[in-house]
Amino acid sequence: MSKEAKTESMSLHPLGGGAEVTSEQEHLCVFGTGDMGRSLGQRLLQTGYKVAYGSRRPLGCGPVPQGAQVMSYADAAQLAGVIFVCIHREHYGLMEKLSSQLMGKVLVDVSNNPEQNLYPEANAVYLQRLLPGSHVVKAFNTLSAWALQNGPSDACRQVYVCGNSTEAKQAVAEVATKMGLTVLDRGSLSAAQELEDFPLQLFPEWRLPLQITIGLTAFFFFYLLIRDVIYSYVDQGKDISFRIMVSLANKVFPIVSLIMLSLCYLPGVIAAFLQLYRGTKYRRFPDWLDRWMLCRKQLGLLALALAFLHVLYTLIIPIRYYVRFKSWDYVITQVKENQTPKFDTSVAWRSDSYLSVGILGFGLYILLGITSLPSVSNALSWREFSYVQSKLGHVTLFLCTLHTYLYGWDRFLRPSTYKWYTPPGFMLSLVVPSVVLGLKLLLLVPCVDRSVTRIRRGWERTQPDEEKTLLT
Amino acid sequence: MSKEAKTESMSLHPLGGGAEVTSEQEHLCVFGTGDMGRSLGQRLLQTGYKVAYGSRRPLGCGPVPQGAQVMSYADAAQLAGVIFVCIHREHYGLMEKLSSQLMGKVLVDVSNNPEQNLYPEANAVYLQRLLPGSHVVKAFNTLSAWALQNGPSDACRQVYVCGNSTEAKQAVAEVATKMGLTVLDRGSLSAAQELEDFPLQLFPEWRLPLQITIGLTAFFFFYLLIRDVIYSYVDQGKDISFRIMVSLANKVFPIVSLIMLSLCYLPGVIAAFLQLYRGTKYRRFPDWLDRWMLCRKQLGLLALALAFLHVLYTLIIPIRYYVRFKSWDYVITQVKENQTPKFDTSVAWRSDSYLSVGILGFGLYILLGITSLPSVSNALSWREFSYVQSKLGHVTLFLCTLHTYLYGWDRFLRPSTYKWYTPPGFMLSLVVPSVVLGLKLLLLVPCVDRSVTRIRRGWERTQPDEEKTLLT
Amino acid sequence: MSKEAKTESMSLHPLGGGAEVTSEQEHLCVFGTGDMGRSLGQRLLQTGYKVAYGSRRPLGCGPVPQGAQVMSYADAAQLAGVIFVCIHREHYGLMEKLSSQLMGKVLVDVSNNPEQNLYPEANAVYLQRLLPGSHVVKAFNTLSAWALQNGPSDACRQVYVCGNSTEAKQAVAEVATKMGLTVLDRGSLSAAQELEDFPLQLFPEWRLPLQITIGLTAFFFFYLLIRDVIYSYVDQGKDISFRIMVSLANKVFPIVSLIMLSLCYLPGVIAAFLQLYRGTKYRRFPDWLDRWMLCRKQLGLLALALAFLHVLYTLIIPIRYYVRFKSWDYVITQVKENQTPKFDTSVAWRSDSYLSVGILGFGLYILLGITSLPSVSNALSWREFSYVQSKLGHVTLFLCTLHTYLYGWDRFLRPSTYKWYTPPGFMLSLVVPSVVLGLKLLLLVPCVDRSVTRIRRGWERTQPDEEKTLLT
Repeated sequence: MSKEAKTESMSLHPLGGGAEVTSEQEHLCVFGTGDMGRSLGQRLLQTGYKVAYGSRRPLGCGPVPQGAQVMSYADAAQLAGVIFVCIHREHYGLMEKLSSQLMGKVLVDVSNNPEQNLYPEANAVYLQRLLPGSHVVKAFNTLSAWALQNGPSDACRQVYVCGNSTEAKQAVAEVATKMGLTVLDRGSLSAAQELEDFPLQLFPEWRLPLQITIGLTAFFFFYLLIRDVIYSYVDQGKDISFRIMVSLANKVFPIVSLIMLSLCYLPGVIAAFLQLYRGTKYRRFPDWLDRWMLCRKQLGLLALALAFLHVLYTLIIPIRYYVRFKSWDYVITQVKENQTPKFDTSVAWRSDSYLSVGILGFGLYILLGITSLPSVSNALSWREFSYVQSKLGHVTLFLCTLHTYLYGWDRFLRPSTYKWYTPPGFMLSLVVPSVVLGLKLLLLVPCVDRSVTRIRRGWERTQPDEEKTLLT
Repeated sequence: MSKEAKTESMSLHPLGGGAEVTSEQEHLCVFGTGDMGRSLGQRLLQTGYKVAYGSRRPLGCGPVPQGAQVMSYADAAQLAGVIFVCIHREHYGLMEKLSSQLMGKVLVDVSNNPEQNLYPEANAVYLQRLLPGSHVVKAFNTLSAWALQNGPSDACRQVYVCGNSTEAKQAVAEVATKMGLTVLDRGSLSAAQELEDFPLQLFPEWRLPLQITIGLTAFFFFYLLIRDVIYSYVDQGKDISFRIMVSLANKVFPIVSLIMLSLCYLPGVIAAFLQLYRGTKYRRFPDWLDRWMLCRKQLGLLALALAFLHVLYTLIIPIRYYVRFKSWDYVITQVKENQTPKFDTSVAWRSDSYLSVGILGFGLYILLGITSLPSVSNALSWREFSYVQSKLGHVTLFLCTLHTYLYGWDRFLRPSTYKWYTPPGFMLSLVVPSVVLGLKLLLLVPCVDRSVTRIRRGWERTQPDEEKTLLT
Repeated sequence: MSKEAKTESMSLHPLGGGAEVTSEQEHLCVFGTGDMGRSLGQRLLQTGYKVAYGSRRPLGCGPVPQGAQVMSYADAAQLAGVIFVCIHREHYGLMEKLSSQLMGKVLVDVSNNPEQNLYPEANAVYLQRLLPGSHVVKAFNTLSAWALQNGPSDACRQVYVCGNSTEAKQAVAEVATKMGLTVLDRGSLSAAQELEDFPLQLFPEWRLPLQITIGLTAFFFFYLLIRDVIYSYVDQGKDISFRIMVSLANKVFPIVSLIMLSLCYLPGVIAAFLQLYRGTKYRRFPDWLDRWMLCRKQLGLLALALAFLHVLYTLIIPIRYYVRFKSWDYVITQVKENQTPKFDTSVAWRSDSYLSVGILGFGLYILLGITSLPSVSNALSWREFSYVQSKLGHVTLFLCTLHTYLYGWDRFLRPSTYKWYTPPGFMLSLVVPSVVLGLKLLLLVPCVDRSVTRIRRGWERTQPDEEKTLLT
């Protein structure tokens, strides 16, 4: 068998002892002389292959890269074992007539569709159906045209490959590796749909979290604009609109960040209570909860970005002209009125605790962000990942909530806080986190915890359901 | 050969031209109807497979996912080429009786043990020993139950697979890929032990470094608490306990961070001197040194985390109520006493240098941290990695030590520094880094450097050892 | 076929049912008893293999690890199917005589050259040419000696493997996996050159960007040193040299950072105009432009590092002795002269906008840096990556440029700004970014944008060129 395999594989990629010499003599075939075919052929020529273009009108087709030949589909197909199909899906019908010439050949489907869900089946699957005697391999479609023309740069070295024949995939992988690309095998041709959808997507999983962020940010921006800037203008006739740039931003960002962090942990708590109520883990969650749980990572990362901005906005406070001015003004007034400021230890305690808890919370926040990096989370076992994201995550939420409570302190009771009878932004931001932490605390009560653990290990409470059926 | 291969592979994964159609007809078998079997079967059904459960009591077993059949082990085994063994290791004995039915089948061992080192051999190895005619593949055990039930989310797409038969692994990989998972081949079944230990571990390599961090932090916290807060209370009757939250933290963190950074580089220096003394690199280091060298990365990352906290604690200094109060108080006192503060250029030089060196040190620190990320360090050659971690690492240590010396400045000589005859924390923190830097400097002396390089290239000084033997 | 394959693979790696038992009996052969051979053999023994050394002088060779045998090349070769060739390329000639004994064996070439481009062909390719009957596999050469001796640590688990025979690569991969390493297949032996160059490189792609950074930093340092410190000394006789440490650094870093960020986006703009002018995308860019485009990532990351330092240098401003002194001095003078500072709303607006825009720019900057991490950019589709790097990148450049304009504000018109008739540093830094943003704006004009898009999709304007030919 070993010898047979060698013989066959030799026709695809000759023994590489003098690889540079022999590979120059190896032919690859490209069907179609459009942009894709041209870019790909140019790159293949640079890699050291001989390229034969197959075209409907070998004489009338556009220019091809220097060094390549152009001939009819049938002639080109005979020259090479691997054929790159760079024609639009609409013209795949033409290929059917060539089925005898393409018998046993490796056909590389590099096509992409202009949008998702245009056709019921993936292009490559369709091509395989038309030509059951050929070995269709889906590949190269996730690369940018730039990468195909100029060779791999940093961000796009990866070629995803799928197909039903292992030998065919191997042959394509060989070509890709010679082009300096890294090959990732995605299994059989049933993965083609996924590969064809990949280049069309633009952060699909970030859309909902981003909408939530923008919505919350806009709401709190206008809410605080009215409460702070407009109130001050109406009530005291003072124009403090300049505070929009830093002071207002530094209220909106932490508020939205805290709410979004708590929204990360709310679905987990809801899911636990749902399982407790249902007494089983084998019933699917409602769709909205499933979707919510799947975007927790994105919610958390956006919350982290806002927290990061909050930290920067806080740290530049003492550099601001307004703050320096107020400090000078305070001292000069004190001196003029011959007063001495008195040190209040409890204020010092509160101010320092508030800052210290905030810093520790932010530190853990960053840690959560780092463990979300693909390469880090891949290196963790499931137990480790859930330890960091769940245990440390809840501690982070607790610290950030405490930070906000300490910020509020006695303002909760001061009537002057409630301008125009509205609560300040930070109080609104405390609602969801407090609820999440309260519910989580409930889940940590030993007897509740035991029930949840039992259910998650597969136990089912069927009795109560039967009882209920009997009673009703 | 190509056709033969096709025929065989067809029995495992039929030609995917119309993958959606045929894969619906493909059967997979799951042995055991416990939680694991149920979760896995549900997921396989969702992926489009037909699932047949094998059970000891096909009629009396618990509920199975809708759409699956339940039958005896022997009947189920006949339906499918790939069988998922979801039964506890204790019951593997039952499988032995089925050896004729399981002959040539692919058995996927998904089991995990409740704790490490419970059995002398891995579960999968044991299963293979019982059934030498079957192809045992260890897989899926590193996934969380949630991932198996709900499909892959971000953090757990990776399936580690190992087994002795390449074809069997291929078949399992095919199923995993269809489930949307990424397959990582870990070689033969001898890797099964590692795969079975993986889900049980909880940061084993972080334990020692974390203990060191906590120990050092606790020691310095109490040391500084006594020297600063309690001393002030006893000696001057002043209550400055509020300083615990920020001032004290901002002393403990940098001190521990610097010590831990130097502990990263101490073992390397010790190893070099040991090699110099022994005159060879072919003798193993003592165990404690080996273990120490293996946790350098973790020591460094914890040191970085503390340095990060130190930076944040430093940057919020001007926002603190206590600091602002002292500043106001100073000015008001100056005005009242009709004094003008005098600018001291040397203080300005020292203060600015101290800050600037600290920032540069922290910048390099961050760089070291980034190159520790798996995806970054994997992209570096060994020469590049050691350049960054060793050369830049020592520069970082030097800058951070210099930062601390500049902080100390003339305080080393002031008697008032030594309250209750104890040195301040920053002086203690300078001991280890100074020793490391001194020894490293010694190693950079040309003649010493030459000897070390020679030894590391394989040279051995055997003469002196023989002389010593003769002399004694 | 299945049985045949099994038989063959058995000779390489016996069925692992009782892997621990049988693998102890498996022999591996190491040619050469130098440092590399010794380190590798020691590690193989620890992994559980039997090791037979092949040597020219089996009796007179140096010490080998305990437990290994030493014999002649021919004898050693007969014991094992896999042979590690740890001899220098210069001695490969000796191997030719053994061609009959090595027929069909797997030869692992682990060699590295002392420098690049020493030989016309890769060592492994040369070895394969000498021994066409053997299966040469290039592997293990990218590992450090430390990793080979002590087992894999974190940073060097990856073994790159290339070779023409899939079975031979499989056998080597098996050994590497047992040693705890991760195997990455790099295709046929034509990749050997790349693998042999890998350990020799030291950040080749960072060299040019680093030179640019150092050049720009040095230029602006001396420029500002003259304008600020020396000018002040000559003109007013004041020694403000202490400002070098922080104030000057905090001018040089942001200036160089902004220029380098704009240098990231300049080549893209030039390329677009070149394509517009040529009317085609199929002509190669000039070499300098190609090289420039390939180091954009490195330019950007260095710019980010400098921006990070700028942020830290800015945030410590209020902690500096000099700044605190000036603040006190200002207040005391105000009090003494009985003046009250007046609040200027427009200054507050400007100061806050300047800071706020800077923070947002830095936030996006960090985002760009994170998406440059290999593991993050690999997870993005090409469309997503270019969206972040191009769209968000230009927004970042715009924000940072705006930040600098706001910093300048009315200083552009003040004569006192132009000491010794030279413009201040920040004005110089604005030149390139303004040009880049202006050109980019031009490219966004609908009709220009349409032309560029058409060209990038493969359209060619050949007419105008012909006309030009006719006219001249």
